[in-house]
This record gives sequence, structure tokens and C-alpha cells, in this order.
Amino acid sequence: MVNQKKAKQKRVKPQVLKGFRDYPPGEQIARAKMIRKLCETVELMGFLPLQTASLEFAETLLGPHYNEDSLSELFGFTGPDNVDMALRYEFTVSLARYVAGNSTLALPFRRYQYGNAWRVDKPGPGRFREFMQFDIDIVGTQNLLADAEIIAAMVTMLDHIGIKRFKVRFSDRKILNGLIEYVGISLDQGPDVMRVIDKLEKQGREAVIKELGPGRTDKSGDKIKGLGLKTAHIEQIERFLDIASLAKDQQLVKAEELLGDVEVSRTGINELREIQDYLSAMNISDSSTAIDLTIVRGLGYYTGPVWETTLLDLPEYGSIFSGGRYDNLVGRFQGQQVPGVGSSVGPDRLLAALLALQILEVTTATSVVLVTVMDRDRLPQYLQIVRELREAGVPSEIYSGDTKNLTKQIKYGDKVGIPFAVIAGSDEFDAGAVTVKNLAAGRQKARETTKREEWLKAEDIQETIPRDTLVEYLRARTIP
Amino acid sequence: MVNQKKAKQKRVKPQVLKGFRDYPPGEQIARAKMIRKLCETVELMGFLPLQTASLEFAETLLGPHYNEDSLSELFGFTGPDNVDMALRYEFTVSLARYVAGNSTLALPFRRYQYGNAWRVDKPGPGRFREFMQFDIDIVGTQNLLADAEIIAAMVTMLDHIGIKRFKVRFSDRKILNGLIEYVGISLDQGPDVMRVIDKLEKQGREAVIKELGPGRTDKSGDKIKGLGLKTAHIEQIERFLDIASLAKDQQLVKAEELLGDVEVSRTGINELREIQDYLSAMNISDSSTAIDLTIVRGLGYYTGPVWETTLLDLPEYGSIFSGGRYDNLVGRFQGQQVPGVGSSVGPDRLLAALLALQILEVTTATSVVLVTVMDRDRLPQYLQIVRELREAGVPSEIYSGDTKNLTKQIKYGDKVGIPFAVIAGSDEFDAGAVTVKNLAAGRQKARETTKREEWLKAEDIQETIPRDTLVEYLRARTIP
Repeated sequence: MVNQKKAKQKRVKPQVLKGFRDYPPGEQIARAKMIRKLCETVELMGFLPLQTASLEFAETLLGPHYNEDSLSELFGFTGPDNVDMALRYEFTVSLARYVAGNSTLALPFRRYQYGNAWRVDKPGPGRFREFMQFDIDIVGTQNLLADAEIIAAMVTMLDHIGIKRFKVRFSDRKILNGLIEYVGISLDQGPDVMRVIDKLEKQGREAVIKELGPGRTDKSGDKIKGLGLKTAHIEQIERFLDIASLAKDQQLVKAEELLGDVEVSRTGINELREIQDYLSAMNISDSSTAIDLTIVRGLGYYTGPVWETTLLDLPEYGSIFSGGRYDNLVGRFQGQQVPGVGSSVGPDRLLAALLALQILEVTTATSVVLVTVMDRDRLPQYLQIVRELREAGVPSEIYSGDTKNLTKQIKYGDKVGIPFAVIAGSDEFDAGAVTVKNLAAGRQKARETTKREEWLKAEDIQETIPRDTLVEYLRARTIP
Repeated sequence: MVNQKKAKQKRVKPQVLKGFRDYPPGEQIARAKMIRKLCETVELMGFLPLQTASLEFAETLLGPHYNEDSLSELFGFTGPDNVDMALRYEFTVSLARYVAGNSTLALPFRRYQYGNAWRVDKPGPGRFREFMQFDIDIVGTQNLLADAEIIAAMVTMLDHIGIKRFKVRFSDRKILNGLIEYVGISLDQGPDVMRVIDKLEKQGREAVIKELGPGRTDKSGDKIKGLGLKTAHIEQIERFLDIASLAKDQQLVKAEELLGDVEVSRTGINELREIQDYLSAMNISDSSTAIDLTIVRGLGYYTGPVWETTLLDLPEYGSIFSGGRYDNLVGRFQGQQVPGVGSSVGPDRLLAALLALQILEVTTATSVVLVTVMDRDRLPQYLQIVRELREAGVPSEIYSGDTKNLTKQIKYGDKVGIPFAVIAGSDEFDAGAVTVKNLAAGRQKARETTKREEWLKAEDIQETIPRDTLVEYLRARTIP
């Protein structure tokens, strides 16, 4: 038995789980601002918000044949009432479940959803086990207008949050499916061939060709097994890679010359032409989108158009916004197929990009005014100031900590990052005045000068003004 | 072994876990609108957003001495790396963990957090296992200004979302602690006595007195065990209950007469006076707050002021917004105490109240204009209309489903709840015109008349206007 006294003293280490994190106010303010803008943008385009449950039946996420091993690949467990459940690892399956379970839903269903998802990946720099995701999808239609709307939404979302230099590159799985057929490789090998072609951008052409054949040794000396295709087959794939490196207006023409006799490829080529026409009509500029026949996308469930998005000034971020058409996914839940198309972005990586590109700055405070308490007998007057400021729309707070020391109160304001402090004692009140200290300017000046006395007294750091002009004075300086 | 063919055909039932739910667009639009207003309000008051991890170490949530049983009272499980973890059941413990783990944090820390929490309660009407919570707290201060700020925030939040008739009733645990001391009951029995007094409002005075003594039989015939207090003790508690039923300006005076000699009660009484003074200075009206000495609050961790909030027009909702001061909670994580005060509201119950009070209406669409596709050859022109509308800030979509049938397209707009539809075929385009159908007015009229022909042709349901006036026409009718 545990010694009661010792047990009582035992303290819990204040830590978060591996791969998890908190979002401190500074990050959260910026993140919320960005997400609000994303929501506004997609609502302007008629997408509807949906929130699905965070926990799902294990079979919903994993299909009917899951076992203990596959359950432990998610945050899965046997929960109340002895039911197997797991935290969602993405939203698309839940969307499919929602659509399948709501037979009266108006289709096409244009929905967006953002929130957390959970994966038992090995945590790493920028890779978390709990992460946010923002998805847009249009389900219940095979009309390629929907695909164009998804691409247009991606472009508009990035544009509205202030990212100007990016490229959405898109292709169509059907073209590659036709290539497999054309080359004469077994259809079973198709996914492997696509997986290798998908490495073209990162690994280069030579590596791809070696991986299609005998395999290769990478920079670290690791052996990478090849697919062992015949030379003749590889040469035919190379002809396709030649096309993919052409200027974009040439790609479809040449692809048609090469694969035009394969029906599925022809369909894919026509789909891309159609989407391109819609994008032009929507005035989606060529500088932000391009056909790129080497785009594959990792996920197995895509059936038609697919896309990836790279930031031109941050190519090292890889694809930040990607998706495609999936026409079979809802099938898990019911006999009838519900086709869909969608795209997904990680708000955390997007926020990191906005900060790296200096499009967004981190502000750590919500208050722009701290009303200090110099004289506790004057509390009603300080509270009156706070009230007036808030009613005028100026975010403010009264110092509500335990110290009576004014310097410490100012230090609090500085540490939180509040731009202005209001200071008033009996002298000021008796003279109908109040002092406003510009903490933000003070911090700036402190960085520029080492003479503390100098900046403390500088006129633009601190001003005494008539009490009855205070709210207007601060309003003018804090509300843009 | 499972028959492969049968296995492939097995479909998953599209269902959510017991106690879980999805938020369909209509609800989610209203909920997001309300939460945005709540965030704006608390940011105006200088509260900072924090997001903590959804999953925590089991010992963080349950303390160091948890066992399998207590773990299964949460959504708890042994996760990756063989670590015991659980979904949070509220935010306060995570806040304490965050503060304990961030020693450089500026205190007082005024934070707000909203998001999901999970509890293994028995699901019931309006009671879910996954639910949203919105918390405001100020930690790291014993200054009662913080308590007043929390009450002011509650009042302002309710006011800003449009609820006018509510009452925040507050008391101080210390007064009741003093009562236990005064009556001379064992301090161990204090929590039981408070739990019984807490029933005063719901069960009435007679029931409370019986429960303090021998016990009682409730309406359903169930026996409720009494505390078995002596008659003399109960009579003294009754004297306190007499005070609690007095007019509010009398309560503190009389409480002081009864309990003024007990130090802890006197402290509590003075705390309430101080908070009341601050609220007056902030112009928080007496109609929205009141001292009520019978307020106890269920949770054990409160140490000082406590409050509950009832909606005057929906008393059956019980307390919708409640909290208090907890000065020992962070102690689980470190030797040093970090005092705090806070309050919590359930956005879902709040939203239900807004809908019940008809302060908020459910809108199921984000688009206000549906551009129909009558002639697929004209797609560039339809897309051009959508683009112009969006650029003018009018949320719109093009019909992107599979049917070419105009009636079905309009039916889609109706079903989603989109107010306007744009219709144009070759005749209109050639005449430089376009037709706008007011679907919302049509739905209204359809409810009012049974003569379908009549409302279909009614002038205010459908209008043909010059193409170049379209955007302004719709802007004027859709943007308030």
C-alpha cells in the first residue's frame, strides 16, 4: 500500500503527450485570424460548414475487417459499452459516412470542415499526432464544374489570406491509368509505377528510371528496390516523362499523340481540357494553375483529376494544399456510389508559411490598453475608464494582479505585449488629467537606445492628456 | 476464415457512436456565428485565446493515483508507446498544467478557450459524450478585481449575443464554510451539508430540512438518506436559510449579524461586498447580477466566490454559465499555489436558448445566389456571373450537379435554402437580359397559397432585368 503522506506529496509533471502541443495565445490569435478568413472565403463560394464527431466507430474509419493491429495504428481503443472506436485521422471518411446516413441531403453537397485529426505517426519537426485540417469537398456529382470550383476555391483561399505566389498543378489519374495499359504492364503494378513517377520532382528523372528498373542506391547508401520493369516498358514510360517536361500548352497535345488511342487516357485528357476552360472563364490566372502530367497523389482512392499546390517562395514546404476526385469512397457505406471531389490544407503549415513570408505578424495581446491601478481607493475611476474604452470598441483590461507596484504592472503589460498603458494617481485625477504610456513605442526605443533615462522621458513614449479626451485619444491610436 | 466475397460485400452502417453527434450546416452556421461573437467580446476584454491538446496524460487529468477504473470513467486508454492517456473532460486542469509548465508566463493570465470535451456520462436528451465548452479564466492572482472581471465578462458575453433577461447570482464558499464552523458540525460533513443546501432552489426548503435530518421520500417514492444532523444544528442552518430568502441588500447585513464573529464568514462577506462595488463601478446593472447566499456549486475545488446564471425566460434550462474561484488547483503540478478564477458556458445549450428565444434564426445556406445552368454551351457566361457576384461580396455558387433539368436545379436551391436563383438561356443572353427568381419569397408564398400557378407568375417572385445591372440588383437585395 502506498504511503498516504508520500502519495499526497507526489506531483504530476506538467507535460504534454509526445506529438501533441498547446497553441499559446500568440499563435492562436494568428491562427484564428487566418481560419476566419478561410471560412469567409469558402462561404462566399457557397460551401457549407459541417462538424462531424471526433470519435467514430472503428469500422467506420477502418472498414469492416479491421483488427487490433489496424486499430492501434489510429488512436483507437475499446471504449464505453465495450465498443471499438477511434479518433478520426482525416475528415473524408466521416463526410462519406454523413452523406450515406442522410438520404434526404441536397446533392451536390458543398461542405467545408476544419478541426483536429489524430494520427499515430512518428512525431518529428512540424509533424504532430494531433493536427488541424481544413477540407473542402463537393460530393454527389460527377460534373467537372465541381472540380473547377474546388481548384478555384483553393486559389481564392490562398489569395485571400495574402499568399500571391503559388502554383496549383493538376493532372488526371485516368491518363496514367491509360499509360499503364498502353505500356502493357500488369494493372496490378499500376499503383507501384505511379508511386515511382510521383518521385520525379523530388528525386529526379534518373532515380525514377532506375527505380522502375533494377533499383538504386540513395545518397545515404540505402538500397531502394526497383520494380524490375523491362527496358522496353521503361522506354515507353520515358516517352511519357518527356511529355511531362514540355511547356504546359504542349503537354495535352503530345499526350494525345502518345496515348490518344487508349480510351481512358483520352477521357482524362478531355477532363483536363474541360477543367482548364472553366478556370479560364472564372478568370483563374494561368500564373496560379498549370497542368502537370506527373502529378499522381499518394492516396489510393483518387479516380480522376488530382492536384497539388506549392508555394513558389517556399518550395521546401512541398505540397501544402492537395486533393482530387474520388468517385468510390462513399461505397463503403452503401451500394450506391456517391462521387466526390475535394481538397485539404493544413492550417498549421499554412500559418507557418504566412509567418515565414511576413504576411502575418504574431501579436501576443488582445488588449490594446492596460489600465494600471496606482491607488486602490480610485478603483471605481479606473474601472470607469475600462468600461468607457470597451464601450468605444477599444480592447482593454484593468491590471488585476496582486502587486500594487506600478513598475511591475507596466512590466506585465510589456510582457503580454499590450501597446498602451493608462496611468493616473491623485495628482492626475485632481487635475482632470490622465497619462498614457506608449509601451509598444517604448519597447521599440529600448531596442534602439541604451540610455534608459532618455527613452523613459521621451515625449512620444508618455503623454499626459485631459481625462475627457482619453477614449478618443486611444481610439484614434488603436483602431485602424 | 471469412469468405472473401461475402467480406467484400459487407457494408458499414453509417452511424455515429452513442452520445456523439454531427453538426449539420444549419446548426453549424448559427453556432459559428455565436462563437465568433463570444470570442470578439472576450477579446475586447483582454482575454487571450489558448488551445491545449485534446489528449492528456492520464495522470494529468486524474492525478497520480488513478487506476484502470478511473481511467475508464473518461475516454481513457493505453495509447502509442504504451502510455496511459485520455480525452480531456474539461479545460481547467489543462490550463493548470499549461501554467505550471510555463514558468515565464505573464501573470495574471487571462485566457479563454473553447473546443470539445468528452465525458462517459450516460447520454440523454441534450446530454452528449462529446460537447463543446467555452471557458474564461484569470489565473495567478488573488485580486478580487479578477472575479469581478469574470462576472462582467459573463454579463457582457450574454448581452452581446442578444440575451437580455438573465441573472448571475453569486455567493462565497467562505460564508458557508463559516456556517459549518458556527453550527459546530464536523468540517468533514461540510461538503455534504453544502450539497443539500444546493438543492434549495429545485427541491424547496422543506425537502432540504428533511435531508439535513432524518431523510425523506421523494415524489417517485424513492428514499433519500438524510445527514442525520441534530435538531439544534438544523435550526441554526434554518436561520441562515431565512437570511438567504431576504431582499438582496439585506442579505449581507443579516449574514454579518449571524456569522460576523466567524472569521472565515466575515472574509467571505467582505469579498462579496468588494465584488459588488467593482460591478457597480463597471456599470453592471443590478438587474443582471445578485448576491444569493444559497449558491454553492457542485465542484469541490472552489474556494471563494462562486456563481451561477439562469435565463429568466427559460428557467428550465437551469444554470447555463457558472464558475468561481479555485485557489488550489494548479497545486497538483507544483508546490507553489497558483490561484485562479473562471467560468464556463456550454455553447450548445446557449445556442438552443438563442433559438428558443428567437434571437437567432437557422439559415441552412451560405450562398445567397444559385446560378443555374440552362445551356451548357453558355458555361463561360454563367461562370462569369458567379465570379462577378463573388467579387462584389455576394456569396454564390454555380449549379455543379449532374442534372441538366432546370426544375431540378431550382429544387436543389430550394432544398439548401438559397434565397435567389439566376436563370438565363439563349433568349435572355441575346436580349442582354437575365432572370432572377426569388426562391425565398417563393417558398413564403407557397406556404400562403395553394394556387401554384399564381405564385409562380407573381411579379415579385421572378424578374427579368438587364444583364449589366445583375450584380447591383442582387447586392442590394442580399447584403444588409
